[in-house]
Amino acid sequence: MAYDLLQTIAGPADLKKLSVAELKTLAQDIRDAICDQVSQTGGHLAPNLGVVELTLALHYVFDFGPDDDRLLFDVGHQCYPHKLITGRLDLLSKLRQRGGMAGFPEPGESDHDLFSVGHAGTAISTAVGMARGDQLMGQGGHKVVSLIGDASIVNGVALEGLNNAGTLNRQFLVVLNDNGMSIAKPQGAMAGYFDRIRVSHRYAGFKSKSRSILERVPGGRKLQSLYHRSTEALKAMLKSEHLFEHFGLTCVGPVDGHDFDTLIPLLQEIKLMQRPVLLHAKTIKGKGFDFSTGDPTAFHSPKPFVVNGCRVDVKSSGRAFTEAYADAMIELMNKDDKVVAVTAAMPDGTGLAKVAKALPDRVIDTGICESHAMDMCAGMAKTGVKPFFAVYSTFAQRALDQVFQEVALQKLPVRVCMDRGGFVGGDGAVHHGFMDIAMLRTLPNVVQLAPCDEATLQAGLKFMHEYDAGASFIRYPRDSVPTEPLQAETPAFELGKANPIHASDHDKPAAAILAYGVMVNTALAALPGLQQQGYDIAIYDARFAMPIDIELIRSLIEQGTPIVTIEDHALEGGFGSIVLDACNQAGLPTDQVKRLGMPKSWAGPDSRGNQLAEAGLTPERLASAVRELIDQRDASPVVVPDPVPTPK
Amino acid sequence: MAYDLLQTIAGPADLKKLSVAELKTLAQDIRDAICDQVSQTGGHLAPNLGVVELTLALHYVFDFGPDDDRLLFDVGHQCYPHKLITGRLDLLSKLRQRGGMAGFPEPGESDHDLFSVGHAGTAISTAVGMARGDQLMGQGGHKVVSLIGDASIVNGVALEGLNNAGTLNRQFLVVLNDNGMSIAKPQGAMAGYFDRIRVSHRYAGFKSKSRSILERVPGGRKLQSLYHRSTEALKAMLKSEHLFEHFGLTCVGPVDGHDFDTLIPLLQEIKLMQRPVLLHAKTIKGKGFDFSTGDPTAFHSPKPFVVNGCRVDVKSSGRAFTEAYADAMIELMNKDDKVVAVTAAMPDGTGLAKVAKALPDRVIDTGICESHAMDMCAGMAKTGVKPFFAVYSTFAQRALDQVFQEVALQKLPVRVCMDRGGFVGGDGAVHHGFMDIAMLRTLPNVVQLAPCDEATLQAGLKFMHEYDAGASFIRYPRDSVPTEPLQAETPAFELGKANPIHASDHDKPAAAILAYGVMVNTALAALPGLQQQGYDIAIYDARFAMPIDIELIRSLIEQGTPIVTIEDHALEGGFGSIVLDACNQAGLPTDQVKRLGMPKSWAGPDSRGNQLAEAGLTPERLASAVRELIDQRDASPVVVPDPVPTPK
Repeated sequence: MAYDLLQTIAGPADLKKLSVAELKTLAQDIRDAICDQVSQTGGHLAPNLGVVELTLALHYVFDFGPDDDRLLFDVGHQCYPHKLITGRLDLLSKLRQRGGMAGFPEPGESDHDLFSVGHAGTAISTAVGMARGDQLMGQGGHKVVSLIGDASIVNGVALEGLNNAGTLNRQFLVVLNDNGMSIAKPQGAMAGYFDRIRVSHRYAGFKSKSRSILERVPGGRKLQSLYHRSTEALKAMLKSEHLFEHFGLTCVGPVDGHDFDTLIPLLQEIKLMQRPVLLHAKTIKGKGFDFSTGDPTAFHSPKPFVVNGCRVDVKSSGRAFTEAYADAMIELMNKDDKVVAVTAAMPDGTGLAKVAKALPDRVIDTGICESHAMDMCAGMAKTGVKPFFAVYSTFAQRALDQVFQEVALQKLPVRVCMDRGGFVGGDGAVHHGFMDIAMLRTLPNVVQLAPCDEATLQAGLKFMHEYDAGASFIRYPRDSVPTEPLQAETPAFELGKANPIHASDHDKPAAAILAYGVMVNTALAALPGLQQQGYDIAIYDARFAMPIDIELIRSLIEQGTPIVTIEDHALEGGFGSIVLDACNQAGLPTDQVKRLGMPKSWAGPDSRGNQLAEAGLTPERLASAVRELIDQRDASPVVVPDPVPTPK
Repeated sequence: MAYDLLQTIAGPADLKKLSVAELKTLAQDIRDAICDQVSQTGGHLAPNLGVVELTLALHYVFDFGPDDDRLLFDVGHQCYPHKLITGRLDLLSKLRQRGGMAGFPEPGESDHDLFSVGHAGTAISTAVGMARGDQLMGQGGHKVVSLIGDASIVNGVALEGLNNAGTLNRQFLVVLNDNGMSIAKPQGAMAGYFDRIRVSHRYAGFKSKSRSILERVPGGRKLQSLYHRSTEALKAMLKSEHLFEHFGLTCVGPVDGHDFDTLIPLLQEIKLMQRPVLLHAKTIKGKGFDFSTGDPTAFHSPKPFVVNGCRVDVKSSGRAFTEAYADAMIELMNKDDKVVAVTAAMPDGTGLAKVAKALPDRVIDTGICESHAMDMCAGMAKTGVKPFFAVYSTFAQRALDQVFQEVALQKLPVRVCMDRGGFVGGDGAVHHGFMDIAMLRTLPNVVQLAPCDEATLQAGLKFMHEYDAGASFIRYPRDSVPTEPLQAETPAFELGKANPIHASDHDKPAAAILAYGVMVNTALAALPGLQQQGYDIAIYDARFAMPIDIELIRSLIEQGTPIVTIEDHALEGGFGSIVLDACNQAGLPTDQVKRLGMPKSWAGPDSRGNQLAEAGLTPERLASAVRELIDQRDASPVVVPDPVPTPK
């Protein structure tokens, strides 16, 4: 491994010994290390390349550490440079894999990381908490810095955080990493605002006497005095007309976020300001990597790729549910011009980028605003439009209250398509879709369904398109669709009805597997082994978690067939739990019901396959669960009523 | 009933026939009607008195109706004037009661109401959806107006909505009702901003020719041309330096929100603007009612009161859990200076107003920002502070994603105290706390508990104070605490352990009631009747929903004791559902478990008592459930093994 200078950096202390010229070499090392690794394993490429200088300058000026200054990353996918200079170069070769470097901040890896994050917009709010907390604990000397991108800062939580940060009466720095691209193209009016303000001042020739002046500036809203009393150089950087001045922050910039000669002296100055400050830094997403700079959206978080002359080929891994979803949406939208597709800044991740190419006027990207997007869908549904909101399951959590009030309570037919249901692989604990069923199940007027292959995805979407009585939520995983449909003919979805996938050889099977979503494939994979061992099993594709097919369950239980449920959702409160509730409500015993699902623990970065295996959601474990249930039943004494004596 | 003019207004059409002088009389009628009624039944007083003129002016100028212009209320507690002029005067006498006028917009009452709301910050987002939807449905001529207060507009969803509204290329009006008070005192830096900008221009002498000029103004960002081409009067109203200009909205005002002579011609002009516009109106909360203007916080939503000379006495209804909570917090905070209390704009509703009087430096009000508040608590917990976030159960829904990521995933000991668990009475469906258990139960490192009286509330808070292994959530209702403690000595809370409240008279009771939270009182009330009928019952205060006391449940089930669970939370996915899951996981049968809880439906405004009765959560219904379970078990054939013959 090369990266000679990077290898000498065991921690921030080593960094501080470097000259600015050496910092530039280090920046190149970091870029090389990241590019080399991401090309092999995939990962967040462009966001990390964009913040190399910002990260180094922040560590150069501040003293971040467990009992010292606080550095909080928003979203966190831009933490690789930070990780590489805090002793984790050796973990890089297993980026986003078990035992390797997580793709997001991870306190379990290093106490240089404060929060495990992955969802956007939270850093300013947690930073406000730490600033207040340190103050209350008598540790007000710890400086607090948060690093947030321009797409995240328009998220509601971030704006709430900024508004509250503006009331702080102490040092508090928000670094706005404005690359004008973020995950996809930024949306909303503020994006246009960011776009209009260009780097207009170069911070150079900073005069050291301004420091002593600034040290005497008291907290509070004294921007004007700063204007008049500080040096010309700093004066030029302060922006009274900046948007976030209205939030009570002193705004500095925009500055060139790749220029150490600007960043370092400026941060040294800002560090001393006993007030909330926003430093607006303009950066280039994917800086230093040509392919990445050219198409930062595609290279936001690419799969493994190879640099092949001038072409970059992304390695394929089968047809994803995401792509199947995109194609199904295009078909649906071509048939009905009332259908509109909505995303909250994830056009690539949800497949809507492809839809937008085909039907640009009917795809709406709200930016990272899941709460707003859900409400906007509610408003659209109210007018008769048919909105389909494509969102990761984990991000749908951000709109629960909107589902409750603006959607379910109004009985509005908003359609929500939840990608990344279940384990997500390398993104780890911050992105698994494990709680959607549980959080939605209390709501009246909400239907929950799941496909098991591409044909059922299409059929499920068709059902949702026609279902106008309330909201419908479909979930599917970050996984490939089976290469062949599971059934030669896929029956249409019928509300609350499961679909038999494999019938028993006899009138009454030894056990039934009731699988939700793609776990149907797991059940089918378990079947041959069970059959070989002489177990006669029926398999049902549950299709609906809500309403549950209680008639099917009743008939199975009443005929004495044990049931195994399987789902890639939290076992606690999930699909199997709905089955138990429904049985109890219907007066049916549940001692012959066994459930498999995700355990109550946090699964770190790994392949989705390994995560499923760890959770016991494999054909082998399913088969043994089925066998145990059957064997246990057969072993227990069956009470056969005495035959009534036949009258002679 | 007086209010002569108001009685002649059957709908907005009648309003439009009035002169401005008559509008003023109508405004007085509306104020009188509201004051008279709220003094008898309670309700949102001050917010409604503040928007009388704004509401009348909007209806005077726009044509709101099911197939016409759109009017969306944010929060919605300021909808009384709107309801009174849309044919609902006759419902006023039963304000917030069954069959009467709901306290929030209610489409079920009138198609003049678009969304049932009650949570803040949503109207701009749903309005954006309706604006887009109408456009897509070829109904772009419908004008869209949302009315939002200054405390709501800093909520994250509202800011997300504004940012997206700024991209609309059509008519879109946001009316900012800036009373500078909102629910409690507004928090955050923007509140200071609003405070600094004062009504500086009176819109009078408007020249009619400006209308024709404005009609020719194309959409888009042409504020400058407006400046130069419109009349002096309108020019003076346009504010290029307004905060929300940065969000892409053309900002007008501030204007006097009580002055018809300003509002009507201005709205007539703004109505024609084919772009997003924000009208900033300054109003006085509680305008026209002296007691209310004097103390708008206390009279935001008072209980019934009587005007008694110069004094206003609020009628008491026992010692509320809210007050008991406040006193318990004061005691806790006096003992440990690391404890901090947090509210999101509900100091009165949560009891923290009382705490703040005692300990002003350790109560933080973030404004209506539940997501931010939760994250701030996470940040504080990270520094070693012990934050207790007091929030309504229904509003905790807005911070689920923050509980997941910033709290539970980090194993941070954030304490959340959820008032308004269960049915809330007059506020109706928008405020019931029915999904907290279900939404939290999938999360590792989260403990859920509930008190049944004041002593257990204190003991529960003490437990939470000492519990550092993760987050803890306590829930209690909008109800009075029992006048006497349920037990002479209240044992300390022990993680995951239920507390026996009433022991069986024998070794083995005929049935056990496992009650969660205040339902313990319901169980105790059911006891005498059951005892009289000869049923020997044990009662347990479950105390914890998570972790559940599986050892207790196991021992009951193994000894053949039927169990009835009862909770004032959704039956689906709630406490009883956790019992079923735990039994199934432990291999225990559940055919002798019966559950009572809130049904899957929306309960409208009524007394909490009636809502509980409707849901079957009464001593009588509990008693019959217990009897049925026992009788049913006794009726089923009991398999008694043949006695082994004694060897002779």
